[in-house]
Amino acid sequence: MGNTFGHLFKITTFGESHGPAIGVVIDGCPAGLSIDEQMITRELARRKPGQSRITTQRKESDLPEILSGVFEGYTTGSPIAILIRNTDQRSKDYSHIAEKFRPSHADYTYHAKYGQRDYRGGGRSSARETAARVAAGSVAKQFLKEKHIGIYAYVSQVGPVILEKKHTELDLKQTDQNIVRCPDPVTAEQMIEFIDKTRKNQDTVGGVITGLITGVPAGIGEPVFDKLHADLGKAMLSINAVKGFDIGSGFEGTHMHGSDHNDLFFTEDGEIKTKTNYSGGIQGGISNGQDIYFRVAFKPVATIMKDQDSVDVHGDATTVKGKGRHDPCVLPRAVPIVEAMSAIVMMDHMLLNANARI
Amino acid sequence: MGNTFGHLFKITTFGESHGPAIGVVIDGCPAGLSIDEQMITRELARRKPGQSRITTQRKESDLPEILSGVFEGYTTGSPIAILIRNTDQRSKDYSHIAEKFRPSHADYTYHAKYGQRDYRGGGRSSARETAARVAAGSVAKQFLKEKHIGIYAYVSQVGPVILEKKHTELDLKQTDQNIVRCPDPVTAEQMIEFIDKTRKNQDTVGGVITGLITGVPAGIGEPVFDKLHADLGKAMLSINAVKGFDIGSGFEGTHMHGSDHNDLFFTEDGEIKTKTNYSGGIQGGISNGQDIYFRVAFKPVATIMKDQDSVDVHGDATTVKGKGRHDPCVLPRAVPIVEAMSAIVMMDHMLLNANARI
Amino acid sequence: MGNTFGHLFKITTFGESHGPAIGVVIDGCPAGLSIDEQMITRELARRKPGQSRITTQRKESDLPEILSGVFEGYTTGSPIAILIRNTDQRSKDYSHIAEKFRPSHADYTYHAKYGQRDYRGGGRSSARETAARVAAGSVAKQFLKEKHIGIYAYVSQVGPVILEKKHTELDLKQTDQNIVRCPDPVTAEQMIEFIDKTRKNQDTVGGVITGLITGVPAGIGEPVFDKLHADLGKAMLSINAVKGFDIGSGFEGTHMHGSDHNDLFFTEDGEIKTKTNYSGGIQGGISNGQDIYFRVAFKPVATIMKDQDSVDVHGDATTVKGKGRHDPCVLPRAVPIVEAMSAIVMMDHMLLNANARI
Amino acid sequence: MGNTFGHLFKITTFGESHGPAIGVVIDGCPAGLSIDEQMITRELARRKPGQSRITTQRKESDLPEILSGVFEGYTTGSPIAILIRNTDQRSKDYSHIAEKFRPSHADYTYHAKYGQRDYRGGGRSSARETAARVAAGSVAKQFLKEKHIGIYAYVSQVGPVILEKKHTELDLKQTDQNIVRCPDPVTAEQMIEFIDKTRKNQDTVGGVITGLITGVPAGIGEPVFDKLHADLGKAMLSINAVKGFDIGSGFEGTHMHGSDHNDLFFTEDGEIKTKTNYSGGIQGGISNGQDIYFRVAFKPVATIMKDQDSVDVHGDATTVKGKGRHDPCVLPRAVPIVEAMSAIVMMDHMLLNANARI
Repeated sequence: MGNTFGHLFKITTFGESHGPAIGVVIDGCPAGLSIDEQMITRELARRKPGQSRITTQRKESDLPEILSGVFEGYTTGSPIAILIRNTDQRSKDYSHIAEKFRPSHADYTYHAKYGQRDYRGGGRSSARETAARVAAGSVAKQFLKEKHIGIYAYVSQVGPVILEKKHTELDLKQTDQNIVRCPDPVTAEQMIEFIDKTRKNQDTVGGVITGLITGVPAGIGEPVFDKLHADLGKAMLSINAVKGFDIGSGFEGTHMHGSDHNDLFFTEDGEIKTKTNYSGGIQGGISNGQDIYFRVAFKPVATIMKDQDSVDVHGDATTVKGKGRHDPCVLPRAVPIVEAMSAIVMMDHMLLNANARI
Repeated sequence: MGNTFGHLFKITTFGESHGPAIGVVIDGCPAGLSIDEQMITRELARRKPGQSRITTQRKESDLPEILSGVFEGYTTGSPIAILIRNTDQRSKDYSHIAEKFRPSHADYTYHAKYGQRDYRGGGRSSARETAARVAAGSVAKQFLKEKHIGIYAYVSQVGPVILEKKHTELDLKQTDQNIVRCPDPVTAEQMIEFIDKTRKNQDTVGGVITGLITGVPAGIGEPVFDKLHADLGKAMLSINAVKGFDIGSGFEGTHMHGSDHNDLFFTEDGEIKTKTNYSGGIQGGISNGQDIYFRVAFKPVATIMKDQDSVDVHGDATTVKGKGRHDPCVLPRAVPIVEAMSAIVMMDHMLLNANARI
Repeated sequence: MGNTFGHLFKITTFGESHGPAIGVVIDGCPAGLSIDEQMITRELARRKPGQSRITTQRKESDLPEILSGVFEGYTTGSPIAILIRNTDQRSKDYSHIAEKFRPSHADYTYHAKYGQRDYRGGGRSSARETAARVAAGSVAKQFLKEKHIGIYAYVSQVGPVILEKKHTELDLKQTDQNIVRCPDPVTAEQMIEFIDKTRKNQDTVGGVITGLITGVPAGIGEPVFDKLHADLGKAMLSINAVKGFDIGSGFEGTHMHGSDHNDLFFTEDGEIKTKTNYSGGIQGGISNGQDIYFRVAFKPVATIMKDQDSVDVHGDATTVKGKGRHDPCVLPRAVPIVEAMSAIVMMDHMLLNANARI
Repeated sequence: MGNTFGHLFKITTFGESHGPAIGVVIDGCPAGLSIDEQMITRELARRKPGQSRITTQRKESDLPEILSGVFEGYTTGSPIAILIRNTDQRSKDYSHIAEKFRPSHADYTYHAKYGQRDYRGGGRSSARETAARVAAGSVAKQFLKEKHIGIYAYVSQVGPVILEKKHTELDLKQTDQNIVRCPDPVTAEQMIEFIDKTRKNQDTVGGVITGLITGVPAGIGEPVFDKLHADLGKAMLSINAVKGFDIGSGFEGTHMHGSDHNDLFFTEDGEIKTKTNYSGGIQGGISNGQDIYFRVAFKPVATIMKDQDSVDVHGDATTVKGKGRHDPCVLPRAVPIVEAMSAIVMMDHMLLNANARI
């Protein structure tokens, strides 16, 4: 259960970290959308392990194969299946934890739920699953591009290093110009330095990614339970290692008074806008035409290179040794994942909105 | 769209603030659950307007009528419909905003989406809808009580007044002993004072509610998209005025290193536990048997008693006058709503787990 | 479970035969649809008990109350809740079967599933539930009318009395001109005579209703699992007492050769049509612009006025006495139900089609 | 849309007839189910083209590759993805119909819906899609086998050749003993003869498959919309070429009186049974412990070897020539498809029933 996301643009992912392949089936993509296969590959490359010294050194080619749903370069309305073969599995790296529960991983909880687990590299609980999301997200991005909707994400915090500038003060074209994916070069340098230091200490660190969606017309989002920001929140919280989400003024706004926080409406060039944007572009769960921005909190990666106390499947005390190839900080590689999930939610809600009025 | 929540324990709410009634239909409640109707009424009373000086003075009796699904005191497996009549509507209070968009309300976005709206008291976008959730949640609570699962929430921040104690240091039986629903009497007093001052200034204020779920066995929650905390997050973000959600260490945990943040396993009395609980009781989307705790950020209430600049449905500049009966701080009344949504998610995931293994 | 129907135009029904009320919540109806409340009442009157000598003599006023989702005569996009109070319950009529299983009713199966049941008048399994469907269907009919789609049903068989004419040879305006709802006056007379005889024998009889949907543009319906006729089939098979469904040539077509059965295309006035219509207006699950017609088989009503051997909840042999007020033939009252479910499926698939292409 | 089936045991199929591959992702299969991969291959072989002289001569190896969800021979609770590569596509066989609409195929309706189509071999509308269902069904069969539930289907009519015996009079082990899959050897011979004659006439013929499910305990199925037979009906009607479905007495029962049709209860060896079984094992949508049996009507295959009048995408008159490799009668190969869909529905409803009572 729980491997499908979306109301109308539905993605179902499958596959384990060390099985033969992972992939995604997308149902609900309208026919007639032009698909650039190279763009899917490029997006996967942004998430790919081994892309820089501050990511895991596992090497995956991550070449997507489109199995269905695209004919002569256009979607047909049929399900789009995309397959990504696993190539650099080193399953024996994991034999030492076959019977041990790694702290703050999903080993114990999967075991408790299913009575067994595919222990190789975390199996289904591995963040490798998110490659399938990135593939699906790149299809959604191609749809949104035609609607002039922009999808952005960037690293805005790594441990103690915080990017103080707002998205409105940044040049987001800079995001991919450095290996940490922070659009401010100075802060980026500090983040990289901090990750380098953390890596050398055989440790890991958490941080925050900021997401931004531009160009959304007013009126997108469903009231009550499927509010646009509620679906965005669920999308983000479903990403591995995410522990928090807020939108607009978020947790900071809780300190404010209504008279300061309310976004006053005015008209400019015949368009209704707001003077401030504490709402984060969404009011009552529905877009108001302003920028949608939000923060996603990532905990430090659970796999560290140090030995840790734990228990095994029999409940006996044991030691989990630091081994394998892992990320000291997951955030640079998580940027395309946040973007993918944003794109999937936005496209889904654009489709949902088609029947808002007769 | 978007008026149903849940995978197996499905609630569908209906009704507008100033229509004849609101209500909920629950599908998927197992047969044989003993239902205490008085408990539903009591829970509704905790959310009811007019309960103290720091809430809106609108008076609603909020008496639930069970229309179906309960026979001789037990659920039958058929849908449980609960109806709550609206009694104290003063729709004429709203005629002055029929054509105006109140700042940071959903007036404009509903208008943009639907081309029209029921403007009386916010119509469907009114927080009155949450009474239906509380009614449904009280059914879920009765189910969870039989499973020895505890559902708690309390106000942990009002504007600048922050409760510094963790849930483990508090006596949660104190929560309902004061009108602000903060279990620490001293902090409660400060919060009430701050709300009083805010009210006198014709202003409003935001804050944070902390949620807690105890007694959940390990293994509850679905992997990948329907992670337990992702569903909790969506549930909370769908509540009116909520702008943020984090679980366990949340946003604070982003500052930590993995070596500090990892929750080490140990065995006590034959049960696997963790030494710390930065995970917030959930790992890989599945419960690990420890306390599940999370924070929910509420923005300041948008309705203030001061005049505000805005635009009308024609896009012309106008002034929205401060009128009507509203809450200076929504948090005390939101505590039972957070509990209700927690209970609904937990019961839903308990049912989902029934088929985890053959 | 199982009380919601539809993909986008979703109806959830609730209520028991002898509880306080039954009703329906419709989610997904677009805003801006003009609603004629009188039409809902008129449709309910066509299904109402006590409407003629050949139906049950139970008297229900069946007056719908719209609780939400309609404002100033138009739908708002919010859920439409419609309530119908039960007024003529005689629950004591059923005390004699509280512990007995009536043959070919759902008493035993509900008991086996839920371990208990609301035995009064069949509780949730009563065909009274279908009044809620008729209310929802009348909303869908108002939508379809604006799209020039016609929804028709009529009784085409009662026991041995078979209407030999095809729908193309009939004047369907005649359907409601007689109490059995057969558009051919001569056959109608024979049917009524047969039902009268059956009633006098304290027996019941089955039959067939033919459904017809006209004016559907080509391209409506989803491929693979949610084929238009698969959803129509499920809709009809979910109606009480229905045991079969076929579309177009149906079971008769199984005797044919492909060379006779294939519907050849031709163009007339720029429109693509077929020379024959064995397909019943649907090919590959998608409408082709021709008339959609189908048959629905109803078993004889299970409640008869004769005593029958049975067992009780303890498994002991017993006799179920013929008592209560029931229909000798359910078909006249089932015509609006078949129409309602047709309308709901058609509207649902019209909405689903909105995103077929970008 | 519409490529997913099931409430809890959810299958999503993908792939086109002449694309690189077809496949299925199963979500919701409990962990711990032993999977015999050879059985999946064997079931696919029963559906495979080219298996006898009365089926199409297209050759497909139809070897399934399990990509995920099975570890060391057991399901893990993660999605089970099964891939089947297409190997014997001869897409150029279809270039002659790229712009023509084959009569009674889905060419025109797909074109009307999507504005384009993958014309090679029918693309997504090809019955090749059903191989993915058979793969998924074989997983469900392994689950049901452990629950002692039997899934059977056989050909009971080919054109005018009708098997008069009921399922209770047949030895269903004989079904696969002949190439037409009719368990009565004499009737089988007549059916084969008729198909041979039809094939030589370059024509096709329809028929009926009877399905049977044994060993289902009382209480399985959901009331109201998701009645067990409604879901079975939808499942069958979603199979290519199916035009009708009835259960138990079905269309024949419409001729009967209630006093003859009612299935009287009695107790035998402490178990509640019925003297007759006109209900077909289901009452009020829920199983009563008796055999579940139903009929599925298949129209004659639309592809014939004769030339036929039609129109092209421009609406101009044209001739569709008889070409390619096709089945004169689809029924022998449809037997495993009917079984697969029966198994999927039964397993799904077994899982749904897990939460019927607390």
